Amino acid sequence: MPTPLDQLFNPASLAVAGASPGKPGYLLLDSLLNARFKGQIYPISRSCSDVSGLKAYASLKDIPGTVDYVICCVPAPQVPQLIRDCAAKGVKVMTLFTAGFSESGTEQGKELEAEIARLARSCGVRLIGPNCMGIYCPKAGLSFSYHLPTESGRVGLVCQSGGSSVYTVQASGYRGVRFSKAVSYGNACDINEGELLEYFARDTETDIVAVYIEGVKDGRRFFRALSDLSRKKPVLVVKGGHTRAGAQAAASHTGALAGSDRLWDDLLEQAGAIRAHSLEDLVDLLVTFSLLRLPRGRKVGIYGSAGGASVLATDDWAQAGFELPRVPDQLKEEASALVSNDAGLILHNPMDFSMFAYTETFYGLVRSLVSADGFVDLSVVHMPTGHGAWLPPAAFEAMMESVRDAVIRTHREINRPLVLVMHYLVTEWHWQKTLDKLQRRCSEAGVPVYYSMASAANAIDRFLRYYERRQATAAQAKGG
Amino acid sequence: MPTPLDQLFNPASLAVAGASPGKPGYLLLDSLLNARFKGQIYPISRSCSDVSGLKAYASLKDIPGTVDYVICCVPAPQVPQLIRDCAAKGVKVMTLFTAGFSESGTEQGKELEAEIARLARSCGVRLIGPNCMGIYCPKAGLSFSYHLPTESGRVGLVCQSGGSSVYTVQASGYRGVRFSKAVSYGNACDINEGELLEYFARDTETDIVAVYIEGVKDGRRFFRALSDLSRKKPVLVVKGGHTRAGAQAAASHTGALAGSDRLWDDLLEQAGAIRAHSLEDLVDLLVTFSLLRLPRGRKVGIYGSAGGASVLATDDWAQAGFELPRVPDQLKEEASALVSNDAGLILHNPMDFSMFAYTETFYGLVRSLVSADGFVDLSVVHMPTGHGAWLPPAAFEAMMESVRDAVIRTHREINRPLVLVMHYLVTEWHWQKTLDKLQRRCSEAGVPVYYSMASAANAIDRFLRYYERRQATAAQAKGG
Repeated sequence: MPTPLDQLFNPASLAVAGASPGKPGYLLLDSLLNARFKGQIYPISRSCSDVSGLKAYASLKDIPGTVDYVICCVPAPQVPQLIRDCAAKGVKVMTLFTAGFSESGTEQGKELEAEIARLARSCGVRLIGPNCMGIYCPKAGLSFSYHLPTESGRVGLVCQSGGSSVYTVQASGYRGVRFSKAVSYGNACDINEGELLEYFARDTETDIVAVYIEGVKDGRRFFRALSDLSRKKPVLVVKGGHTRAGAQAAASHTGALAGSDRLWDDLLEQAGAIRAHSLEDLVDLLVTFSLLRLPRGRKVGIYGSAGGASVLATDDWAQAGFELPRVPDQLKEEASALVSNDAGLILHNPMDFSMFAYTETFYGLVRSLVSADGFVDLSVVHMPTGHGAWLPPAAFEAMMESVRDAVIRTHREINRPLVLVMHYLVTEWHWQKTLDKLQRRCSEAGVPVYYSMASAANAIDRFLRYYERRQATAAQAKGG
Repeated sequence: MPTPLDQLFNPASLAVAGASPGKPGYLLLDSLLNARFKGQIYPISRSCSDVSGLKAYASLKDIPGTVDYVICCVPAPQVPQLIRDCAAKGVKVMTLFTAGFSESGTEQGKELEAEIARLARSCGVRLIGPNCMGIYCPKAGLSFSYHLPTESGRVGLVCQSGGSSVYTVQASGYRGVRFSKAVSYGNACDINEGELLEYFARDTETDIVAVYIEGVKDGRRFFRALSDLSRKKPVLVVKGGHTRAGAQAAASHTGALAGSDRLWDDLLEQAGAIRAHSLEDLVDLLVTFSLLRLPRGRKVGIYGSAGGASVLATDDWAQAGFELPRVPDQLKEEASALVSNDAGLILHNPMDFSMFAYTETFYGLVRSLVSADGFVDLSVVHMPTGHGAWLPPAAFEAMMESVRDAVIRTHREINRPLVLVMHYLVTEWHWQKTLDKLQRRCSEAGVPVYYSMASAANAIDRFLRYYERRQATAAQAKGG
């Protein structure tokens, strides 16, 4: 017997209430069609008999077949009636896109939210929201936006904010991260953060869980669920509203009581979760936990770009607790032998071989360094994006193609931790296009790509600390 | 009588040694032609009689007219002879693009560098470099790369790294910062950081100075020059090689002795300079110091985007020491009166009017908030870049055009501190193009644009602290 949450992620049929053209439900309906939802879709519209090529119904009750799941986009005052209709129709679960409840800060909004929560409980209808985007589950063809990956992955997302859920799936999706399912849950008047974390702890389709949270509805349940989940899977948490002013903003966003920053630090630490400091940081962590092979230690080799970039790179990795070992003489000789003229090949670590980035030699150099035994635990390739300024577009593109080829081939052929850092520079059009292509191809091939050395180093540091801690805990358990 | 440095930034004629096609001098020559250098250019090439349409000479001595300045791109062993030729020809100053000196770490390289320094001193020829990009001075038509702004501005750059100098001019140029002159000075075997800072202290064309430094040649002179310069102009400093590992990398990049991080923190603080933590951070500071009108205080109003972005924005500004005042009732009424239907208009601070971003109303709302007396000292507009996921490209473009129009018009009409934050999202092609256009237009119009709330808040915090400190010093001086 499937639970309401199981049904939520895999409905055979669904209805979208408030789906008339120009209404929010119309856009959500369209993004479901785009995501190729496999089941039956019923638009509910008072004004149209047909929406986006689908037969529409004036009310939920008029729909002939069974409905597993309802997406509610009608105005707030109409929500109680829709809940009663769900109960009458046997619908077990509903997501409420509709806003205008406790987050409005008005007494009226708070009362209406309390009313729908009571009503849903008494009717046996479970609610996600209100004031949320609902569900993204590519396997089932469920989506809350356009341009999101249609392939499934192993990351779950529990996200209190609608915009942040779209951002996270999109930005990390673009860098090769794929999701099993994402829930944007807003004000959490019924199904709350704790219940969602419990679901993801037992979900066999999810290996990593990302969380964006502004405040908790049930602190004890949340902490228990978070601790339990963290024992099983890495959990990456962004806390929105961690300053006093931010907490006030959170109250007016999702009606959340946000708690102090220090409390959250302690709480996440005790639960064994990993704190992300922003959504961008969350994306860097997702790229790391999803794509990076676990390095055995903290020795890092940095290859590719020249001068100042190498100095700053060294600072960033050293500051995050990594070590840059000397290049063994034998390896220097091997690398030198790969190039016909080794002038300009600086074989310190970081290694400057930007001069060779536009030749087949680049692949040979990267491959020989990555595959060298006992030299480093992690290889970082970065490349001279600034050469876009020097080279004609076609030459720059050819150069970036050779970088791409070297990174992707080495990643495929050598089973060792390897990442690409792009020193993202927002600039002239033709470069961006070339760099964008490089990034997309590498991400598609499963290479972890970052936009700065600092973000790579800081994310990979937490990745290593997570597994160091797990090992220590396991050793302790064994010892005891 | 012009000094060698004056001549360097404004030569009537110059020669590029090592300018044959395929050699580095060829590219530098080409970027001078691109930048429309106004004086006479003489390529020096042993193999060609003509380079890029200019008559070439086999040696410096063969050039018929006077030569004010030489750009040296010949291999390292040929440099001593070129210095002697300069002396014979009466050339007072030369930049050495040529590498292969102390930064190579070899005894031979160190000796050659010491030799050219001695030789130049005895001949009366001043040197910039070796191992550097040299000079960018748009007023004179001098450039060391392509795609750099051709218009002059009021920022000076003193940069030890070649790649970092190109990056800084390009990335900040793209965001509206313009330079008086930039010097990439590499190993500093003759003209060093101290002498360059002294130059910029007296340069009437420069109001703000940015510095990227790995190590100092003459600590006492540097500190004195930095302190003196900081009393006159804001000085923004990135220290490359501030970790021990980074310092080692710096030694092999520009042969610099880098010093400890704490020492640098103290030194910059005492000198009154402003520390930038990375090149990206330097660019954010340059945007701020060049473009932002000085806010009177730390009250900030945040307008535009919804939900999670607002909560996270509040955290970022609060953490950087800013305050988000309540919106006065009268202002709420005025804002409500501007829209026909105020559902969805959340008039807390941050204010969510993302729903109105694609109408003419957006301008009215922004204008009324920015011009309201006594409400805030600084206005921050951010907009729902995520709407690119929802809207067809043309609709998204129209929405971003209305944001652009609102920001640029308000910036022009109301003389108050206003910035745009873009929540940069690297994603699908058509969005980037639209966002890129928005950014470029706003930057061209003189609006400070940032890619994240945290970077904006942290840069503006240092901007305010700089002027707070100046005021305190001035008050102290007056009191004493």
